[in-house]
Amino acid sequence: MILFDHDDDKPREECGVFGIYGNPEASLYAALGLHALQHRGQEACGITTYDGKRFPSERHMGLVGEHFGGDLRTRLPGYAAIGHNRYSTQGRPMLRNIQPIFADLSFGGFAVAHNGNLTNARELRHQLVRDGAIFQSTMDTEVILHLVARSPKPRFMDRLVDALQQIEGGYALVGLTGKKLIGARDPIGLRPLVIGKLGTAYVLASETCALDIIGAQFVREVENGEMVVITDEGIESIRAFPPRASSPCIFEYVYFARPDSIVQGRSIYEVRRRMGHQLAAETPADADVIVPVPDSGVPAALGFSEASGIPFGMGIIRNHYVGRTFIQPTQIGRQAAISKKHSPNRAVLEGKRVILVDDSIVRGNTSKKIVQMVREAGAKEVHLRSASPPIVNPDFYGIDMAAKSELFAAIHTHEEMVAELKVDSLGFLSVPGLYKAIGEPVRNNMQPQFADHCFTGDYPTPLVDHQHDESDKERQLSLLDDT
Amino acid sequence: MILFDHDDDKPREECGVFGIYGNPEASLYAALGLHALQHRGQEACGITTYDGKRFPSERHMGLVGEHFGGDLRTRLPGYAAIGHNRYSTQGRPMLRNIQPIFADLSFGGFAVAHNGNLTNARELRHQLVRDGAIFQSTMDTEVILHLVARSPKPRFMDRLVDALQQIEGGYALVGLTGKKLIGARDPIGLRPLVIGKLGTAYVLASETCALDIIGAQFVREVENGEMVVITDEGIESIRAFPPRASSPCIFEYVYFARPDSIVQGRSIYEVRRRMGHQLAAETPADADVIVPVPDSGVPAALGFSEASGIPFGMGIIRNHYVGRTFIQPTQIGRQAAISKKHSPNRAVLEGKRVILVDDSIVRGNTSKKIVQMVREAGAKEVHLRSASPPIVNPDFYGIDMAAKSELFAAIHTHEEMVAELKVDSLGFLSVPGLYKAIGEPVRNNMQPQFADHCFTGDYPTPLVDHQHDESDKERQLSLLDDT
Amino acid sequence: MILFDHDDDKPREECGVFGIYGNPEASLYAALGLHALQHRGQEACGITTYDGKRFPSERHMGLVGEHFGGDLRTRLPGYAAIGHNRYSTQGRPMLRNIQPIFADLSFGGFAVAHNGNLTNARELRHQLVRDGAIFQSTMDTEVILHLVARSPKPRFMDRLVDALQQIEGGYALVGLTGKKLIGARDPIGLRPLVIGKLGTAYVLASETCALDIIGAQFVREVENGEMVVITDEGIESIRAFPPRASSPCIFEYVYFARPDSIVQGRSIYEVRRRMGHQLAAETPADADVIVPVPDSGVPAALGFSEASGIPFGMGIIRNHYVGRTFIQPTQIGRQAAISKKHSPNRAVLEGKRVILVDDSIVRGNTSKKIVQMVREAGAKEVHLRSASPPIVNPDFYGIDMAAKSELFAAIHTHEEMVAELKVDSLGFLSVPGLYKAIGEPVRNNMQPQFADHCFTGDYPTPLVDHQHDESDKERQLSLLDDT
Amino acid sequence: MILFDHDDDKPREECGVFGIYGNPEASLYAALGLHALQHRGQEACGITTYDGKRFPSERHMGLVGEHFGGDLRTRLPGYAAIGHNRYSTQGRPMLRNIQPIFADLSFGGFAVAHNGNLTNARELRHQLVRDGAIFQSTMDTEVILHLVARSPKPRFMDRLVDALQQIEGGYALVGLTGKKLIGARDPIGLRPLVIGKLGTAYVLASETCALDIIGAQFVREVENGEMVVITDEGIESIRAFPPRASSPCIFEYVYFARPDSIVQGRSIYEVRRRMGHQLAAETPADADVIVPVPDSGVPAALGFSEASGIPFGMGIIRNHYVGRTFIQPTQIGRQAAISKKHSPNRAVLEGKRVILVDDSIVRGNTSKKIVQMVREAGAKEVHLRSASPPIVNPDFYGIDMAAKSELFAAIHTHEEMVAELKVDSLGFLSVPGLYKAIGEPVRNNMQPQFADHCFTGDYPTPLVDHQHDESDKERQLSLLDDT
Repeated sequence: MILFDHDDDKPREECGVFGIYGNPEASLYAALGLHALQHRGQEACGITTYDGKRFPSERHMGLVGEHFGGDLRTRLPGYAAIGHNRYSTQGRPMLRNIQPIFADLSFGGFAVAHNGNLTNARELRHQLVRDGAIFQSTMDTEVILHLVARSPKPRFMDRLVDALQQIEGGYALVGLTGKKLIGARDPIGLRPLVIGKLGTAYVLASETCALDIIGAQFVREVENGEMVVITDEGIESIRAFPPRASSPCIFEYVYFARPDSIVQGRSIYEVRRRMGHQLAAETPADADVIVPVPDSGVPAALGFSEASGIPFGMGIIRNHYVGRTFIQPTQIGRQAAISKKHSPNRAVLEGKRVILVDDSIVRGNTSKKIVQMVREAGAKEVHLRSASPPIVNPDFYGIDMAAKSELFAAIHTHEEMVAELKVDSLGFLSVPGLYKAIGEPVRNNMQPQFADHCFTGDYPTPLVDHQHDESDKERQLSLLDDT
Repeated sequence: MILFDHDDDKPREECGVFGIYGNPEASLYAALGLHALQHRGQEACGITTYDGKRFPSERHMGLVGEHFGGDLRTRLPGYAAIGHNRYSTQGRPMLRNIQPIFADLSFGGFAVAHNGNLTNARELRHQLVRDGAIFQSTMDTEVILHLVARSPKPRFMDRLVDALQQIEGGYALVGLTGKKLIGARDPIGLRPLVIGKLGTAYVLASETCALDIIGAQFVREVENGEMVVITDEGIESIRAFPPRASSPCIFEYVYFARPDSIVQGRSIYEVRRRMGHQLAAETPADADVIVPVPDSGVPAALGFSEASGIPFGMGIIRNHYVGRTFIQPTQIGRQAAISKKHSPNRAVLEGKRVILVDDSIVRGNTSKKIVQMVREAGAKEVHLRSASPPIVNPDFYGIDMAAKSELFAAIHTHEEMVAELKVDSLGFLSVPGLYKAIGEPVRNNMQPQFADHCFTGDYPTPLVDHQHDESDKERQLSLLDDT
Repeated sequence: MILFDHDDDKPREECGVFGIYGNPEASLYAALGLHALQHRGQEACGITTYDGKRFPSERHMGLVGEHFGGDLRTRLPGYAAIGHNRYSTQGRPMLRNIQPIFADLSFGGFAVAHNGNLTNARELRHQLVRDGAIFQSTMDTEVILHLVARSPKPRFMDRLVDALQQIEGGYALVGLTGKKLIGARDPIGLRPLVIGKLGTAYVLASETCALDIIGAQFVREVENGEMVVITDEGIESIRAFPPRASSPCIFEYVYFARPDSIVQGRSIYEVRRRMGHQLAAETPADADVIVPVPDSGVPAALGFSEASGIPFGMGIIRNHYVGRTFIQPTQIGRQAAISKKHSPNRAVLEGKRVILVDDSIVRGNTSKKIVQMVREAGAKEVHLRSASPPIVNPDFYGIDMAAKSELFAAIHTHEEMVAELKVDSLGFLSVPGLYKAIGEPVRNNMQPQFADHCFTGDYPTPLVDHQHDESDKERQLSLLDDT
Repeated sequence: MILFDHDDDKPREECGVFGIYGNPEASLYAALGLHALQHRGQEACGITTYDGKRFPSERHMGLVGEHFGGDLRTRLPGYAAIGHNRYSTQGRPMLRNIQPIFADLSFGGFAVAHNGNLTNARELRHQLVRDGAIFQSTMDTEVILHLVARSPKPRFMDRLVDALQQIEGGYALVGLTGKKLIGARDPIGLRPLVIGKLGTAYVLASETCALDIIGAQFVREVENGEMVVITDEGIESIRAFPPRASSPCIFEYVYFARPDSIVQGRSIYEVRRRMGHQLAAETPADADVIVPVPDSGVPAALGFSEASGIPFGMGIIRNHYVGRTFIQPTQIGRQAAISKKHSPNRAVLEGKRVILVDDSIVRGNTSKKIVQMVREAGAKEVHLRSASPPIVNPDFYGIDMAAKSELFAAIHTHEEMVAELKVDSLGFLSVPGLYKAIGEPVRNNMQPQFADHCFTGDYPTPLVDHQHDESDKERQLSLLDDT
């Protein structure tokens, strides 16, 4: 198995989810949809179907394309399926922590997969264990399952509402029972979830690119705080929370979503190109070539080139064939200027004044290496530009991004950053510039249109678990072996 | 992995258990002990230790000797360990159904392994699921775990007593917490459990042969209805049930226990030899050679030979190198007279009047094949003798033995059996003869000394689940993949 | 293991090679070098070192980064190493066909890896088998080994020269004995091989990008018909062939080499950009956006955009997470317009007149699918441009490209191609334009500077095996299992 | 995979072979036949068939029953098959050293498997390598293949004769071409090979038990120095060697052959029983019980009991579930008196004067442990009896038995042995007694009827390789990875 290394210095989100109801090849569509969402998580993947009687399930470490080939119709039969791609936010990878998870509850089977993090999961978990619940994984998702299992309400949907009303945080979830496909988005819509239609079947997915790959039509996004229930009768919407303004995570625009996805009616690729325009306007530099840090920096670099008139050049080549266990260049005494993933293209860089465009700077390590690599390849000047504002606050809703003490921009002044990165100049897109690129003329500071706390410190929800000590994180929580 | 096929036609029991407390090499001893108990279950094995902080655990399909080699002290550190060998009573083998199982309960971790079957497990399970419990396996053992988790009692031992008082059936269990090793035997002592001592450490095991292999001294058997609690302070006995007469399973003498084990002070080998003496007296025949069905029929055949004066000969050779996936002789059009496990030794059989001695006859299939094989090898006469009485009733306490409708002696008259088996004569040990061989002059019919219901129909406990429909047995009960 | 699918419709070459002599971490450098050459072959990889006594070796199916991690210094110790990445040209992947291959010959061990194909391999092989040679693989490389083993010459280098003088075809090989690292290039230099220096150690590699990743300095290319012998004494050059003009494969410029490599002093990236310039001049079209078929079409598309002034846009997104066993979209009834690898970026394409730029068109299948995909995403017009001339002849020197009867441009007129591809216009770079982009003002038609037979039919060497029947290709040639 | 440990202290032979010609289910029969021969080698197994065009082949580490299940007719189709079980005589197990081995020679394919060792293999191998042969394994068998490949004779059978005339040693081989199944036995018939008939198909096998399992009729043994050639026309006998007296290995009677096999018309079981009779007569002792070391000592112990009138008892229980990687009892500080394989049956041993009967004593280690184990179980006296004479010379024909300096009886006087083993008395069967038990009234000292050099020092053939240094044994001899 090849495990794709995430870029060390990028925010990671915890998942892509997919659901489909009403097609005899549900698992095939789920596999294709998850494949299109692979950029949201490459560590593990799983699909659960309902075949009219049982809930066949397969969960694997690794890529969708490594495992879900061949005879899927036989392995995972059924008219309905849910699936999940995972990025682990913590600890070592474990098979038992792969979603979807399933329980045979008193009213029948219930499978669920979710993207996001609950901010009060530990609190709820402790309470549940005190009440005799036995956990088999360390996933937040299992908390939801136990809340549903223990709800005193007689009807399943009431139990699910009951459960969701107890949890805090950002999530998009897909659930499957013998009769229903359910989609739910947290009250402020932090994590994305869209609805599509494929013939008479309904589809749920984290991004529109998963609809495109199967040829499904985009219907609309699930709204913040909305639950949609898809049955043989059609689709129904349930609103279990008091109305609130939506506040989707701004990182979907910056980094998470695939460039060909449409979020809130906006092309991610175009938004990123406009970030480049904006960045060129805000932080110009005299240079010979605009070089993206591939792949995620490409659209903004193209935008920067368009706006500045400075030519665009592929000065850095990305090697996609990287396995997780590979030797480290440092093992042979070479450090910054070589990389398993990025190679300098000397012909583009040598003797040039280079503007390097990246989507964001998190811990700064990768940026340092890339700057040094570009310099060693002969660049005369290196001007680094981030197509997003400085990241100065951690996230607690499912983005795995390092603690505040590791955030480069949080612990350095601008001058220190310039010195550490060894760049000739450094520029970040402004928060207003980011909003403008997205298409919002101004940020509503009283009620920001997006969850932008990493840039601004405005957390959209209370953080229950956050005050707790993290030290017992490693405690064994399951009956199952780790191996 | 080689999975040892159990003899198709033998009763199977569900397990061997082992526990040790107070030795820094607990897992090494557990591995050796389980190896000595391998005859009680070859499908899967597991060991859980307590290392002062966590409960390291390994569970595997296959034999102890295939998995528990090498650096056990590193893999499974700790001063205390419990372990388990399993024979699956139903369904296909699944990793999630391997014991010990573990839960992190509100008062700390609790690992448990058990041998036996609960007769009210399904009833309890349904109730627990109705109350919101989420099961991760289909094992009875998990019911006990949930009962402990949900007990309202504040102290762990009280919770465990509370749980055990709710279950019915035959069991021997070993449990491990951060402070205690616990052994418990059901109220009538159906399943065996012995106590040993190795230096200052205490040991629990299904049979004495597991004490012998590690050089531990036999102390005594755990009594029926007794719980023993081993801590740093020593051993303590708890009696949570009203006193009852003990009624251990008579099949330990007939087939389950290893010949070198001592059960209730009696050598299994000697008991079986005496069964042979008794059998020779009850069902004599004029013959040239006494041939055992190896390996389990050997001691009784030796006894038969001693008592009858007819020479003993290894007329059937057993091939121990059998893998589960191997081709079937039937694939090439040959049927009864060849076998992957048994080969006729023509030199012993040809032209001879043969008395074949087996320990028991369950469904009759293997007996038929062996008789035919012996005839094809040239035996002039074949007289089949079973060193136990006719099996006419199924077991519900953890022995997997076929339904009543499949029990050869339950559905045929003596004449039909002789005809079907194509033997010249057929003889079974009588129930009084069996008791006598064990060392009990007479069976106490009001209160039989052993659970002998398979021979007599006297079930020692009520059978709660038994009235229920078996049809939902295959229902998926867990959040976990089957693979 | 994830096996990377090569683009179905691209020429494939058979390998990357690497060698290093004189560094205690030879295997670590070999692994990094092969990683940089991974684009030349992703099916299998191998490294052999010499540790002063033995030739430790590891060969694996899959990527370098999947297998060569961890403790390489222990697994593959030694001051010298050779390595190989493979693309299989035929048949299913087999472990026994992975290079380097090794033989213990009368004078000592000899390991060899090579890139290329021998055009008289079958002839030689038949002769060798007639003379009693036993082959263990189906690789051409083994022919060389047998020729060396059987040479009557007493000294190793004379034997190797003897062997090379008998073979025909295009190759670059690296060889390792207990005392020497050898590099050799065929008489016309079809396959590439460069020399580098890392401190006092010498390095051989298919491309300069493998020198860059380890920080080695480029020294020069091995010349056509040259053998270089590297020992503790330094480097020596041997010329065993009569002088000939060099004729390297032109596909290195078009497709094979990585954009950051330097071939014959020319930046591959710049050459491809100039192909784009030339293509824009030769086959202009009125359009709104230039869209590359990623990744290989990007430099030419950037060049086209620069020359034409039409904006560049990432209208197709490439998914790099593709596993070989993955389900096919056709399994669910959708055909051309979806793909596991390419997704349309509707925001760039919708309502636009699009010029699609690819590096080449081989069988046309992928092009058809991409054109349809682009149309379904809303493009108003699609103008397809190939940055290389029409491919009308097959290769026999190690490029796996389909038979003539499958070459799209060989079996269709221009009009047919336009109709089949359903494009609004179609343009190919001309042969003179290609030469110009590479930096040669004119093609020397009497003695072409490059092996361009796929475009022109001018094969640079005789094709011995080609007249033979291919039907016995599948004959089992080895003592080894296929599994 | 479970790898069965051979008894540390037993001679090991290198193989079982099987061949069948003329049945559409050849591979199924080969699998069953090899299963019956599993006692001759448990490390690896392989089957090669001929399907009319190719030679499908599978070779695996481990038991026949682990690998050759399921769809054998599809995996290994064909009317003819050969197969092999291996015990490695040296070095670590390697996949490339598993037989059958195959070569595509100038006249077509040839697969071969053999049991035995060539005494001039290294000499021949060095000569072949000097002449340019490339070896891929370290097996003697490959020498034969190269000799056939290089023979100047035009016809295959002449080449094979040519090859066999060059080799020295003891062997039984089976070979398969597109037209023939060949069996050959060395000039003195050291290694066994029998002919059977199954319908119209011919069968070759190391022992008759492999005929029995498939229901084939025994025809006769292949004679010493004979080659049999089986084709569609029937069976033909070729005698390529000058006539010599036969001298089969006496260890087939002592240890190798399965008790139900018939060798030279004699039942192995009966021969061993008579060894017990003879042993009782030669080395009587006053005792209470005769205890065999199971399983191989059982027949002789039964014979001893019959002859002496002392009762037979299973005082040692054998555990068959032993995996190779299992922990060693010594890891936990216990040494001689415990064992993974043998357990004392205290009820038989305690307070008794015990005569322990084993088939042979090689290095003495196991005997020491068993004696100590029996004593610790309470035996009052232990009298050890070996059913074969003292082993005082090593073997060089394929039995792996330790060097002379490790042979217990070769380096100790009788008194030393008694002291080291800590027995009350020690007895060995005499050489005349062994001959008598086999059925030969006297040993022909000028021309012994059996190869009994391990007991007598009379080696039946010259030992070419033996004078050579063993130090280069570990030299890498193959192009193939060890992994």
